[in-house]
Amino acid sequence: MLIRVVAICSVLALFIFAPQAFARQRVDLVISGGIIVPMDAGFSVIENGAIAIRRGRIVAVGRRDEIARLYVASRTIDARGRAVIPGLINTHTHVPMTLFRGIADDLELNEWLTKFIFPAEAKNVDASFVRAGTRLGLAEMIRGGTTTYCDMYYFEDAIAEETAKAGVRAVLGETVIDFPAPDNKTFAAALIYAERFVQRWRGHRLIFPAIAPHAPYTVSEEHLREVRALADRLNVPVIIHVAETRKEVADIMQQKGATPVQYLARIGFLNGRTTAAHLVHVNDDDIALLKEFGVGIAHNPQSNMKLASGIAPVPKMLAAGLAVGLGTDGAASNNDLNLWEEMDTAAKLHKVATFDPRAVSARQALWMATVGGARALHLESEIGSLEIGKRADIVIVDLDSLHQTPRYDIYSHLVYATKASDVRTVIVDGRVLMRDRRLLTLNEAAVRREARLWQRRVAQSLRIPAQSAPQ
Amino acid sequence: MLIRVVAICSVLALFIFAPQAFARQRVDLVISGGIIVPMDAGFSVIENGAIAIRRGRIVAVGRRDEIARLYVASRTIDARGRAVIPGLINTHTHVPMTLFRGIADDLELNEWLTKFIFPAEAKNVDASFVRAGTRLGLAEMIRGGTTTYCDMYYFEDAIAEETAKAGVRAVLGETVIDFPAPDNKTFAAALIYAERFVQRWRGHRLIFPAIAPHAPYTVSEEHLREVRALADRLNVPVIIHVAETRKEVADIMQQKGATPVQYLARIGFLNGRTTAAHLVHVNDDDIALLKEFGVGIAHNPQSNMKLASGIAPVPKMLAAGLAVGLGTDGAASNNDLNLWEEMDTAAKLHKVATFDPRAVSARQALWMATVGGARALHLESEIGSLEIGKRADIVIVDLDSLHQTPRYDIYSHLVYATKASDVRTVIVDGRVLMRDRRLLTLNEAAVRREARLWQRRVAQSLRIPAQSAPQ
Repeated sequence: MLIRVVAICSVLALFIFAPQAFARQRVDLVISGGIIVPMDAGFSVIENGAIAIRRGRIVAVGRRDEIARLYVASRTIDARGRAVIPGLINTHTHVPMTLFRGIADDLELNEWLTKFIFPAEAKNVDASFVRAGTRLGLAEMIRGGTTTYCDMYYFEDAIAEETAKAGVRAVLGETVIDFPAPDNKTFAAALIYAERFVQRWRGHRLIFPAIAPHAPYTVSEEHLREVRALADRLNVPVIIHVAETRKEVADIMQQKGATPVQYLARIGFLNGRTTAAHLVHVNDDDIALLKEFGVGIAHNPQSNMKLASGIAPVPKMLAAGLAVGLGTDGAASNNDLNLWEEMDTAAKLHKVATFDPRAVSARQALWMATVGGARALHLESEIGSLEIGKRADIVIVDLDSLHQTPRYDIYSHLVYATKASDVRTVIVDGRVLMRDRRLLTLNEAAVRREARLWQRRVAQSLRIPAQSAPQ
Repeated sequence: MLIRVVAICSVLALFIFAPQAFARQRVDLVISGGIIVPMDAGFSVIENGAIAIRRGRIVAVGRRDEIARLYVASRTIDARGRAVIPGLINTHTHVPMTLFRGIADDLELNEWLTKFIFPAEAKNVDASFVRAGTRLGLAEMIRGGTTTYCDMYYFEDAIAEETAKAGVRAVLGETVIDFPAPDNKTFAAALIYAERFVQRWRGHRLIFPAIAPHAPYTVSEEHLREVRALADRLNVPVIIHVAETRKEVADIMQQKGATPVQYLARIGFLNGRTTAAHLVHVNDDDIALLKEFGVGIAHNPQSNMKLASGIAPVPKMLAAGLAVGLGTDGAASNNDLNLWEEMDTAAKLHKVATFDPRAVSARQALWMATVGGARALHLESEIGSLEIGKRADIVIVDLDSLHQTPRYDIYSHLVYATKASDVRTVIVDGRVLMRDRRLLTLNEAAVRREARLWQRRVAQSLRIPAQSAPQ
C-alpha cells in the first residue's frame, strides 16, 4: 500500500516539477551516443551525440543529453563508442554485373570486352540475371555502408523493383546505346523503355529514374540530342560515361574536332541534371565547362587503375569547386562495391600522382563519398550529410577493431583505417536495413545461393576452364 | 551377439585386406579439404587437397584422398570450401609504430616528420612502448594472414621477444643511424646493441636477427662500410631504405656523383643478404645492379602513394627477375598492416602507371606477397610456398563472403576480392596462431586496452586537440 502511494506521488511530482518531460516531441527513432561526423560545412564532430528521426527525415542532431531532453523515441539504437556518419554514396556502378566479379582480369581492354564481357552479357543477361545480380550487389553495398547508388545497366525496371524492395536509395539510369542491348534491340526501343521506366518510378521515395546514354563514342550526336530532349521533357537526370580513355578522347577529337566534354557542351547535352562518370582525360577548359554547366562527376579511382584508363585530375576538380563523388564502377572491373577502399585509394592515388602528400585529404575523401556524391547526383538537398531536414540515411561504424587501434583523428580513422567490415548498422530513409551486421531486408543465404547458380551458368557459357571453376 | 561378430569380422577384414591403413605415417597436423594454392613454380591449384605437417614442416601436399591414405594426423583442420595459401610475407614495416596509426596524415613530409613523428618518438618510445606496439601490430598481422614480417626499428630485442612469444616469424633489423635514437644515443652504441642482439637470436626457429642501417642519406659511408663488415662477420642480413624519394636521389647524386643504388654498389654494401625497401626512383642501370648483387626488394605501394614518394618501376623489376616482395611500411604511413590491400593496390597501381591493364597480374601480386617476399628476405628455401620440406606457414581463407561471390578464378579472387577479414585460420611453423578468427597466442582485449593507454599518452605528449582525441 505504502509503495502504491509513493508511486502515485512520484507520478504527480513528475507532472508538477518536470512538465517538459511530457512535452518532449515523439520521434520514430533516436540514434544515441557515439561520435557523430555530420559532414556539415564546418566539418564539425559531435562527441557523445544523438540524432532524432521522424518519418524518414532527420529532425535533430546534437549532444546526447540535449536530444534526450527534447525527444522521446519509439525506438533507440545505442551507438556509444561508434562513429555515426552519413550513408556512403556510390555514384557509379553497373550493379547486376556483380555476378561477373572476377570473370576476367589483367587483360587488354578490347580483349576483356570482346572475349569476356560482351559474350557473357549476350549469353546470360536477362531480367532474372539482373534481379539476382542486383540483390547480390545490394547486399554487398548495405554491408559496406552504402545507402545510395547510381546505376547504369539494362532491365533497369527490374533493378528498381529489387532496390525499392531492399530499401536502398538509387538513381537508376536505363542504358541507351546504338547497338542491340540485352533488353532492347534498337535505340528507339530503348528510349521507349526508358520513358515508360521513368513514368513508372518518378516521385518514388527511394528510386530516382534516369536515362543513361552509354558514352559519346557509342551514342550518335542525333541520339544524344534526343536523350537530352526526352530527359528535359520528363525532368529527370542523365548519366553518361565521358572521357574514360585516351582512345575515346583521340577518337572524338578526330570526329568532332573537340574534346568529349567540349563536344557534349556544344550539342547542348550538359546541364545541372547530368552526371558524368570517369572524366579521366580532361583539360582545364573541360573543367571550366563542367563547372559552368553544373555537371556532377563520378570519380572511380580503382576502376580507372585496374583498366589502366588513367588518373583523373581530381585535386584540380576539387579546387575548381566541382561536384565530385566516388564510384566503384561495376564489380567486373574493380572487383567490389566497396567505397571505403575507394576513399582510401582516392586519397593515396592523387597524392602520388601530384607528388603532393597534402592532395585529397582524409576529409576530402570522406566528403567525396558523402556530400560530394550527393552533389554529383544532384541530390544534395536530400542526402549526403546528417543535417536537419535531410533524409535519415545513416551508417553506424565500429571503431574498436585491431586495425582501427589506436585512434587520433576521426577523419583519418574513417578513411585510412576503417574497412567495410567495420560497418555495423545501416539506415536508409529512417528504416534499418542492417542491424548489428545482420541484413534485415535481404536473405543473405538466398542471395548467395542464387549467385552461385548464376556463377555456374556464366562459367559454362564462357567455357571457363575447370581448374578455376567454382566449387 | 550377431552385431558383435560382424564387428569383429570387420576389424579382422581391415587387418587382412587393408594393411596400408595401419602403415600410415603419423603427422602432427593435416589441413584437409579446400582449394590449395601452393604458389609453386607451375602455379598449380589443387581442388579438394590436403597438407600434412610434421615438426613444423610440410611433409606432403596433394589431393585429400591421397593424403588420407598415406598419413594419420594427431589433429586435423577442416578447410573444405576454403582457400589454403602460403602465409603472407610483409617485407617492410616498423611494427611498434602501429601505436602511431593516424597520428598525422596529409602533411608535407618534413612537417610530418619534424612536427609529429620525431617528437612522438622522442617523447614516447621506450622498451615498454615497443612491446605494446609490437603486440598490437602482431595481432593485426595474424588476423590478416601475415606469417612473416621484416621489421626495422629500435629496441629490436624487445620486438624479438614479443614476436617469438606470439609465434610469428620475422626478420628483425635493429636500426643504426647517425643520430641519437630512442634506444642508443650514438652509432657506436647502436652497433654494439645490434651485435649483442644478433648473438642472442641467431639460430632461433622464428627470429632472424639483422642489422638495419636506416638509409644512405642518414648513415655515413664509413658507417655503412662498418655495418657491412659486421653483418658479413656475423653472417646476418642487412635491411635498408633506398631511393624512396626524389630528394634522396638528388642529394646522393650531388654528394656521391651516383644514384643511391650505384653508390651502395660502389662501396661494397650490396650483396645477396641485403633487403632494400622502396627503390621508388631507380633507373635501368640500378635494376641491373640490384639483379647482379641479388638484392631483395620490399615494394610498399600504399606507403609510397600516401607519402607521395612516387611509383616504383615494379613491372620492369619483375621482368628483370628481381626478388620483389610487398610491404606495408609502418602504420603511421599507410595506415594499416594489411597485405591484401597491398596486393590489390600493387596490381592496380602499376596498370595505371604503365597504361597497361596486363601489368602486375593477380598471380604476380600473390607471388610478390608470398614467394617474392620470401626471396626478398632471402628465405625462399624455408618459406613462401606450400611445398614439401618448407616451414608450415599456412593461411586458410574463407571464400563465401558476399564481396567474394561469385568466384571464377582463384587468383583473381584472392587479389581483387578477398579482404583481411576473410582470413580464418593462421598457422606458423605448424603452430595454430589463429583458429576460426580467434587469436590463440595473444590476448586481443589486453592488446587493445594497452594500446589505448598509449594512445592517451601519445596524444597528450603531442597536445593533439580534444576534438580528435580518443574516447
